[in-house]
Amino acid sequence: MKFLEDVKIGDVLMTGRHVFNADEIKSFANRYDPQLFHVDEEAAARSHFGALCASGWHTAAAWMRLYVDHTRAEHDAMRARGEKIPAVGPALGLRELKWLKPVYVGDAIDYKSEVTDVRVSNSRPGFGLMTLLTTGTNQNGVLAISFISTTFLQRHPETP
Amino acid sequence: MKFLEDVKIGDVLMTGRHVFNADEIKSFANRYDPQLFHVDEEAAARSHFGALCASGWHTAAAWMRLYVDHTRAEHDAMRARGEKIPAVGPALGLRELKWLKPVYVGDAIDYKSEVTDVRVSNSRPGFGLMTLLTTGTNQNGVLAISFISTTFLQRHPETP
Repeated sequence: MKFLEDVKIGDVLMTGRHVFNADEIKSFANRYDPQLFHVDEEAAARSHFGALCASGWHTAAAWMRLYVDHTRAEHDAMRARGEKIPAVGPALGLRELKWLKPVYVGDAIDYKSEVTDVRVSNSRPGFGLMTLLTTGTNQNGVLAISFISTTFLQRHPETP
Repeated sequence: MKFLEDVKIGDVLMTGRHVFNADEIKSFANRYDPQLFHVDEEAAARSHFGALCASGWHTAAAWMRLYVDHTRAEHDAMRARGEKIPAVGPALGLRELKWLKPVYVGDAIDYKSEVTDVRVSNSRPGFGLMTLLTTGTNQNGVLAISFISTTFLQRHPETP
């Protein structure tokens, strides 16, 4: 992520793809969401989902990991060019998180974030607020997850 | 969770307390949110957080685990009394998830959910929709996380 002044409404971040395998689905769910359809193939087959599928929290957390990796790679590239790296402030939260389709074993989810708002922060000098609409789409082009998030982002130090 | 007809607006579920220790904070974050202030004490001390703190996704996932355990215990008790167990439909998503205070090592978060809406589903016969306002409050009484979630819940089979 660049400084606030480098970001504009409509910018799109392709944060990457995550393929959900059974081991990881069960490992996450055993720790954080042990409903039977997330941890047991046979019970999942008898459930309303029809097969083992990932916890919704897992499908969100997988995006976070890709986003952190994406940001780190961007900062590494900026550092290599001798550029300053912006400080990343805390995330404020989410709006309208929707789990639209189950994510089954083998599903490949492509995550994409679009900048929908950029503004200067009144409460935190030197920072602005960036709002992203993030979607996760499966290999059949079907939307599986979407949410809106807002995060503090540093303003460029040279901005008056 | 009981059948839809057994739930009313204002009902409160005390889902329990989770204490966040450093190993678990780092374990979750190394996998899903490896920002330095979630995985490295020294880097966290230099960050805007001032100390190692849990990923926001971790503070939400910890609630999910307590909620699943709470529901399972309730269903076990109903089964022991010879009562029918309601089917739990999919969660639709969340609104207004707010990370209000960082969750540091040793913080004990008490999670509580209040029923804010109950209604019959138009799209899924035999089911209704239950909306919960969930809060997580730390040992000093400070709100750390809150969100609104909506989940399908089976109607009582004998309801006409």
